[in-house]
Amino acid sequence: MNLTGTSFLGSHRGTATGTVFRAKNPANGEDLQPAYHAAGPEEVDQAVKLAAEAFQVYRNVSGKARAGFLRRCADALDAHKQELAERAHLETALPMARLTGEVGRTSNQLRLFASVVEEGSWVNARIDPALPDRQPLPRPDLRSMLRPLGPVVVFGASNFPLAFSVAGGDTASALAAGCPVIVKAHPAHPGTSELVAALITEAVAAESLPPGTFTMLFDAGIEVGTALVKHPMVAAVAFTGSLNAGRALMDLAAARPQPIPCFTEMSSGNPVFVLPSALRKSPAELAKNLFGSFTLGAGQFCTKPGVVLVPEAPGAQAFFDELKALVEQSASFDLLTEGIARTYRRGTAQRAARVPLAASSSMPTPHGETAANAQLFAACLDQLIEEPELAEEIFGPDTLLVHCGTAEDYLRAAQSLQGHLTATLLGDEDDLLSHRALIQVLEQKAGRLLINGFPTGVEVGHAMVHGGPYPSTSDPRFTSVGAQAIYRFAKPVCYQNFPQSLLPAELQDSNPLGIRRLREGRAESAG
Amino acid sequence: MNLTGTSFLGSHRGTATGTVFRAKNPANGEDLQPAYHAAGPEEVDQAVKLAAEAFQVYRNVSGKARAGFLRRCADALDAHKQELAERAHLETALPMARLTGEVGRTSNQLRLFASVVEEGSWVNARIDPALPDRQPLPRPDLRSMLRPLGPVVVFGASNFPLAFSVAGGDTASALAAGCPVIVKAHPAHPGTSELVAALITEAVAAESLPPGTFTMLFDAGIEVGTALVKHPMVAAVAFTGSLNAGRALMDLAAARPQPIPCFTEMSSGNPVFVLPSALRKSPAELAKNLFGSFTLGAGQFCTKPGVVLVPEAPGAQAFFDELKALVEQSASFDLLTEGIARTYRRGTAQRAARVPLAASSSMPTPHGETAANAQLFAACLDQLIEEPELAEEIFGPDTLLVHCGTAEDYLRAAQSLQGHLTATLLGDEDDLLSHRALIQVLEQKAGRLLINGFPTGVEVGHAMVHGGPYPSTSDPRFTSVGAQAIYRFAKPVCYQNFPQSLLPAELQDSNPLGIRRLREGRAESAG
Repeated sequence: MNLTGTSFLGSHRGTATGTVFRAKNPANGEDLQPAYHAAGPEEVDQAVKLAAEAFQVYRNVSGKARAGFLRRCADALDAHKQELAERAHLETALPMARLTGEVGRTSNQLRLFASVVEEGSWVNARIDPALPDRQPLPRPDLRSMLRPLGPVVVFGASNFPLAFSVAGGDTASALAAGCPVIVKAHPAHPGTSELVAALITEAVAAESLPPGTFTMLFDAGIEVGTALVKHPMVAAVAFTGSLNAGRALMDLAAARPQPIPCFTEMSSGNPVFVLPSALRKSPAELAKNLFGSFTLGAGQFCTKPGVVLVPEAPGAQAFFDELKALVEQSASFDLLTEGIARTYRRGTAQRAARVPLAASSSMPTPHGETAANAQLFAACLDQLIEEPELAEEIFGPDTLLVHCGTAEDYLRAAQSLQGHLTATLLGDEDDLLSHRALIQVLEQKAGRLLINGFPTGVEVGHAMVHGGPYPSTSDPRFTSVGAQAIYRFAKPVCYQNFPQSLLPAELQDSNPLGIRRLREGRAESAG
Repeated sequence: MNLTGTSFLGSHRGTATGTVFRAKNPANGEDLQPAYHAAGPEEVDQAVKLAAEAFQVYRNVSGKARAGFLRRCADALDAHKQELAERAHLETALPMARLTGEVGRTSNQLRLFASVVEEGSWVNARIDPALPDRQPLPRPDLRSMLRPLGPVVVFGASNFPLAFSVAGGDTASALAAGCPVIVKAHPAHPGTSELVAALITEAVAAESLPPGTFTMLFDAGIEVGTALVKHPMVAAVAFTGSLNAGRALMDLAAARPQPIPCFTEMSSGNPVFVLPSALRKSPAELAKNLFGSFTLGAGQFCTKPGVVLVPEAPGAQAFFDELKALVEQSASFDLLTEGIARTYRRGTAQRAARVPLAASSSMPTPHGETAANAQLFAACLDQLIEEPELAEEIFGPDTLLVHCGTAEDYLRAAQSLQGHLTATLLGDEDDLLSHRALIQVLEQKAGRLLINGFPTGVEVGHAMVHGGPYPSTSDPRFTSVGAQAIYRFAKPVCYQNFPQSLLPAELQDSNPLGIRRLREGRAESAG
């Protein structure tokens, strides 16, 4: 595919008149071709209007047809796996194997949502039939189901140029719900974004969907994103990125004349609680796995374990020594952008001023603007509790070990935590059973609790929760990964006393779609 | 029961030192005994801390035990029906029959949520079992379910002193979800509030629940409510009331260091679209039913039909004449508070300056401070579209007839609407079928669509939606009435690789609670 550098406005492309920016190869700092053009205010307005127009058709496209569209997108991604991964590799310096894997994850995600909307029961259909003879008043016939919200603005994330970007989970779940999507492309991988957008646009046309079902705007700054979130025809926002940017979008969405749902996934320290039995078992392996997890993707995962609590127990010293050795021996990393690298250097320098730096890898000399070294900090429990900001995320390959007297201290540590995406416990069943109270506290602090695993690696399935209390996300009632992510973009509508001819298929007596429904609150018997 | 005029702080009562206020009988303007005392800042903090403490226990109380508690509350309300209705009658001037009925509605609501949490499937349990041999990576065991959010602040509403107040739907659904409730009592019916709070407090003790499971604070102003919404230990807010107050709470909740969900149900014009066939059938009966609906509860229903579109068609004149006659002949009404009456007088005076007042009932002379007369305004379609604020709610016994050339104009009218709780169509099936496009638009404007009924009368069931786009509520994805109201106060938590011994009962392999669950996204077979 040829890259042109302009926005996607349904069946045509944007102008090449806006502010110019270029992607950079983080591995060597070189500019990549072509030049990209920020969308202007008219193009923002045009994209949203196209989406609003498309919504009037797309909202009534059947689940089966939406599934066909999503599968076509998935097939197109797979067919261009190599090309997509190569461009993403240039723009992110992430390894090719990771990126080809990420294409597969992205297409699988599209297929998961395809299967959800094709099956159709996700709409939560409920029927309370009329009771004309009820005393003192008859009951009308009441039926409800979920309907799509409207045009959704999706912000591409930098750290997963495919799976959390143009055709990522936000886009897939919004399209599945019946909402047109307007993507604000992340400026760190505009070429990858353009390639993916071209594939989705082709799929929109091939499925004869309205052109505004999918649009995408480029911008190097915040103008386009701000204008999108403030646009009166936008119904919801989905974002993955930093706390500062996410909170700014939340505030914009809440301050609108008509506030709209704004799901932001922002920042998480992903605390790990090491119990004595885990140290006894194999301290060296534990160190190796932890190192692998916090440096995976150069530490640029939302679920990077950034705080690790370790008790004074047999094996603790060996674990610590091994972890230090791994950090010291590691090569340097290329972060995704110069901005991320600057923030990492600032964040780790600030942390080093407050807690001891236990180990760090050396940096290549001369080092590029995106280079970063692995860093291991160490603090004691009281310091963490007194300075809870130590549990906050630094985006990059660092982690903070917190030395605790005993695992009994964990309860106090857990109570001091803010909201996180995940919390992890490592230990055998006996150890875990004696920490039930800790698990109870962590359940209030994180959206996903893991036992004997590491939080990086977010499975895309029906039971996944990738969410959590603020500041990990804007609203703990939702997830941005997994089948349940669709619920961010739908609202219930109740139909009272509707004749069969006017009811959506999902609510008709004959249940033509054969979906699971509730009748008077109980599962309707099949048939 | 004796009324003491002080707040409820778990197992003890608040002090009688705060600002004093008294309820007023709207029928005669007389102060009612006893004096009520606003809670001070320490009491606010105490109530929230008690709730936060109680949450650590109450969140793990089984659905069955929560159901027992809710049923005990319901039984207590029923046992005190007469006493509650009598006090509420003094404080609201609403008819006794309506108020005894409202006690029954309130206890039924508690029983509905009891049945929901006793049955238990509402938690949306999902199981994706481990796939240890999956390539390229094994899948961990993932299970998720809904867990309670934390302490919920409930603002009692003035217009339903029982069903939307201390033990109303917000309280019932939050307690059902496993969240302690802190009620900010509405100052218009403090005695009714105190009676109900005493019954709930007794039920808390009788069920051996932690005292902070339920607390209630009095205030005549906004200090207590503001402090509650800003309190860091509060997890969510539920409110029914005016647009101004609701939006202020939304803004407060969004501006917190840690923003929290704030469900506000605020303002709705509840448009009614009269199709020609409805006029042909029985214009006089239509007028009578509409009059009954917009003056029910003196027009102080969230679902009062405030905008009625009528085409130029046979029967239209008869309908209009009959409606005018009904309005002119009606007696005056007592509104709930002097403040509501002032707002009604101001709102109707402002409307009368812009559109013709077609009819009004006369006021008694001399009239009390809460007196209001029924008013019927009339405008033409173009005026409604040019001045969309004409569709906004005036809280009281008025409505606005909008004369349209033909029912074909309805599409344009519907497109100009903001968000409403309900939208209604009146007409025969042929007429309705020819207005499918109108129904499609209305689905985007309201949470409940009614055919051939009137919107007042909100059934409390499994399929009800009492919600809608802003400004009718803060978030169209939720409802504040019906079984689904519980979803405002719960969040999903995912358990990864948990041993059976540490999983909640809802997620254990043996399904000891026998609830409906999804396994790999499909309904688990019974057994």
